[in-house]
Amino acid sequence: MRVYKVLLGLSTLSSFAFGLWPRPKELTTGTTPLRLSSDLSISLAGVAGAPSDLVDAVKRTRGYLKNDKLQALVPDRGSSSKTAVSRAKALRRLQLKYSGQGKPKSISEEAIAAIDTRDEAYTLTVPADGSDAVLTASSSLGLFRGLTTFGQIWYDIDGTSYTLQAPISIKDSPAYKYRGFMLDTARNYFPVADIKRHLDAMSWTKINTLHWHIVDSQSFPLVIPGFQGISERGAYNKKAIYTPADVKEITDYAAARGIDVFAEIDTPGHTSILHHSFPEHIACFEASPWTQFANEPPAGQLRLASPATVNFTASLLTAAAKLFPSKFFSTGGDEINNNCYKQDAQTQTDLAGRTVDQALDTFTQVSHNALKAAGKTAVVWQEMLIVHNVTLAQDTAVLVWISSQDAAAVAQRGHRLIHAASDYFYLDCGGGGWVGNNINGNSWCDPFKTWQKAYSFNPLANITKDQEKLVLGGQQLLWTEQAGPSNLESIAWPRAAASAEVFWSGPGGDVRTALPRLHDLAYRYIQRGVKAIALQPEWCALRPGKCDLDA
Amino acid sequence: MRVYKVLLGLSTLSSFAFGLWPRPKELTTGTTPLRLSSDLSISLAGVAGAPSDLVDAVKRTRGYLKNDKLQALVPDRGSSSKTAVSRAKALRRLQLKYSGQGKPKSISEEAIAAIDTRDEAYTLTVPADGSDAVLTASSSLGLFRGLTTFGQIWYDIDGTSYTLQAPISIKDSPAYKYRGFMLDTARNYFPVADIKRHLDAMSWTKINTLHWHIVDSQSFPLVIPGFQGISERGAYNKKAIYTPADVKEITDYAAARGIDVFAEIDTPGHTSILHHSFPEHIACFEASPWTQFANEPPAGQLRLASPATVNFTASLLTAAAKLFPSKFFSTGGDEINNNCYKQDAQTQTDLAGRTVDQALDTFTQVSHNALKAAGKTAVVWQEMLIVHNVTLAQDTAVLVWISSQDAAAVAQRGHRLIHAASDYFYLDCGGGGWVGNNINGNSWCDPFKTWQKAYSFNPLANITKDQEKLVLGGQQLLWTEQAGPSNLESIAWPRAAASAEVFWSGPGGDVRTALPRLHDLAYRYIQRGVKAIALQPEWCALRPGKCDLDA
Repeated sequence: MRVYKVLLGLSTLSSFAFGLWPRPKELTTGTTPLRLSSDLSISLAGVAGAPSDLVDAVKRTRGYLKNDKLQALVPDRGSSSKTAVSRAKALRRLQLKYSGQGKPKSISEEAIAAIDTRDEAYTLTVPADGSDAVLTASSSLGLFRGLTTFGQIWYDIDGTSYTLQAPISIKDSPAYKYRGFMLDTARNYFPVADIKRHLDAMSWTKINTLHWHIVDSQSFPLVIPGFQGISERGAYNKKAIYTPADVKEITDYAAARGIDVFAEIDTPGHTSILHHSFPEHIACFEASPWTQFANEPPAGQLRLASPATVNFTASLLTAAAKLFPSKFFSTGGDEINNNCYKQDAQTQTDLAGRTVDQALDTFTQVSHNALKAAGKTAVVWQEMLIVHNVTLAQDTAVLVWISSQDAAAVAQRGHRLIHAASDYFYLDCGGGGWVGNNINGNSWCDPFKTWQKAYSFNPLANITKDQEKLVLGGQQLLWTEQAGPSNLESIAWPRAAASAEVFWSGPGGDVRTALPRLHDLAYRYIQRGVKAIALQPEWCALRPGKCDLDA
Repeated sequence: MRVYKVLLGLSTLSSFAFGLWPRPKELTTGTTPLRLSSDLSISLAGVAGAPSDLVDAVKRTRGYLKNDKLQALVPDRGSSSKTAVSRAKALRRLQLKYSGQGKPKSISEEAIAAIDTRDEAYTLTVPADGSDAVLTASSSLGLFRGLTTFGQIWYDIDGTSYTLQAPISIKDSPAYKYRGFMLDTARNYFPVADIKRHLDAMSWTKINTLHWHIVDSQSFPLVIPGFQGISERGAYNKKAIYTPADVKEITDYAAARGIDVFAEIDTPGHTSILHHSFPEHIACFEASPWTQFANEPPAGQLRLASPATVNFTASLLTAAAKLFPSKFFSTGGDEINNNCYKQDAQTQTDLAGRTVDQALDTFTQVSHNALKAAGKTAVVWQEMLIVHNVTLAQDTAVLVWISSQDAAAVAQRGHRLIHAASDYFYLDCGGGGWVGNNINGNSWCDPFKTWQKAYSFNPLANITKDQEKLVLGGQQLLWTEQAGPSNLESIAWPRAAASAEVFWSGPGGDVRTALPRLHDLAYRYIQRGVKAIALQPEWCALRPGKCDLDA
């Protein structure tokens, strides 16, 4: 065997990705190596009356710093920096400082407060000389976001955590208040533990909202006090449920990680499963062929024109709303099938000359008034506003899903909107058709929505200057016809980080410079036990730019 | 809360999927419930001198029978059958009987024998009256296949394993000798443990070949004695390697599960990584822009016209071939880039007036003669035969990958072929473009290849009667530009079971009747710890046919 002096993997300092994700609003870095002392302390002395969830967040951060052991993504995985690191100054302390008024609230309280009132800003300085790093914020939520950033700074070489880019100075705050992820737990069920792990992963990219599409026509896993029969007859099995205790466990866990969980009970469509406990309220139950009655099987919609059904729905929503601390609550409103109502004799009688849209208007007003009485702000899918012209309270937030182009129409109507468009953000597209006997069937929203596609999104396209304030933010979404616990993580990560950065850092990021950071994030997720997938051959991940189209 | 007498989930016996996969050649079932005795024994008394790997397979089967606990996929998950099951006769013993000549060989020995010599046939009877079930085969491999089938018969209700379809009589043997799975461990690396778990999953659907695309331009994880410098400089890191001991562990593990592992060292293309240890043998190393020199980065091909390189390659293949007990060994031969050779001054000199194809012919003959001397039968990708017209030994097997249509051209040339076509069997299609800065880039082989698409494959399309004997079988394939340990299982399962059934049971299966069995298989995989994904909402999985297009 001959030996060649091939210097494979010789790295330069500048080739490091410095994998902060999302990228901070303002960031300056130096070129001095700095290592983390093995007895690093994170001091809360500057946060008088630190809430317990902030104390816990500090503990978790210490855990990540100790366990991440993420090697730099360069061919030699950082070994050529070993000498420089061993000679570097050691950082012994990170000080947290609270700069707000009065006693700090808990992260949890701030995370679920009305969206306009949240403050997620922070500053972070990491000097090069080993003197204390300082994280300052006027909220616990801001301190939490800063801790998340601090946890992304460090690489590992043979057990030593280090950066080559001290001093570091960061001033950061989000471009948009709403940065979400939608999970459908009705097509297939996700155990509580899977949702909690997903919430951790969301928090690592500063996503602050779980839009929980908790029930649908296929199953009703939510146990609602006073309506337990629905889940008894509508969950996939006795264990595939979310009890009020489960919901509290999830919402508490989320809130402590800066995440607001708002639930959706989709109405009046997507409700077939209610038939098993309340048959009188469901039209066209499992009507065949389903293609004529619903966008997917099984067919079945609430009899929106029936006064009894209207009242039932309002009661159901009121009871469900009590389970969730979020200010938001979604009543859905997508994909209402007119033929279902046309073929339903009772609905035709109940309409009494009204159009379906007129009945939907009444149905929605009663539902939304009930939610308002429960302290909630309604969220709806776009058709409610721009197809059915339903009367909506001014503060109702509208989810734009059919096409990103539709945001303009929502904004023109003066409503706040959440970007959730299938042409950029649907994580389930591209998986092939799932209808059983359709050999050449394809995903309805083909092709696959890559991270690059989501990352290229412009939240203000076709939005006027005056309307900009209506854009709350956006999210990627996972509908679970072909997903479950087995592939939640591989579908979501690191792809869902794309919208997290678009809505935290603002649009216009360059996919070339983003990709090395995104690889970094994915490898860090794997170190933390979340199965993020490879976006490219590792050869590419170790050589930024070399797998670009024009490289 | 009102109580409705909704008989959700009332099942009939006929609604059970009876989830054997692949479907046996001959199967008769009854309608009598039968349960497995908790002290079921699997007797090898009828197999004098039973080999140790068969004894181990019996132990694993007992483990599956004990731990699967797969509930029937009906809305009530089988509870309406509980009374019938509790009153059923109990099966206390499965007898294995060897009907072959002389002492049985080991599963391992039979699994890696020349493909034409393998015997995988078995018969299995499970009487309804509790008398012994009997599994008979004239080979250990056949007994192993029968054990796999026996393990798929049973459902669980509250800790009792049962079938509702006794008596059962099965006579089974494969339609095709080759049923494979190709895994690329070069774009991204897979630890040995992941490969072993994958081999188990493969064996559960009677897949009998792992086509191990072990190295490529991006990395060279294979440690080859005498050529250790290649993996030292070409593996992603010091741990991302397969040592000879690892290879033995994998091939032994596979063989004991009826799987032959044949390796591929792709030549002369897909060899960029060799430059780091043998720069003299590589043309157009990492030439830029890569789009002009290779189908993906990094560029680099063996200098096929150089006598030194020809000899080097033959030596390398000889050394690699010694690591693998399989009779097959692939030298690749796909995607040779002519511009690379055109731009390489040394190659132009070495050609000395020959065409690249003429040089390739010499290169291949030397390589294949070396393999032949090592006791191997060569396997190549289709271009070698039908594009470059290389001289190939008559027994060379040809992998058809570019299009299923190309099988006919291979057969016309009188060569044995393995179906591996991108338009049916590529598991990586539909995942979006992975090139870094290509926002609207898409999978080159879009769309996603669904299980239905693979299942609809006809191995004999455009093949004449005389040529049928040339069709060895086929496989699904996973190229790992966007895959790694995080998503191997979710990409492969249960989808790769589609080709397993096409090539075991023969083509022409109906996707309608296959789907309930495939759900069954996927749920069983999950019970065994392999993360098969949901093909549909669970609502559909519990209601065969209800999610068909015309339901």
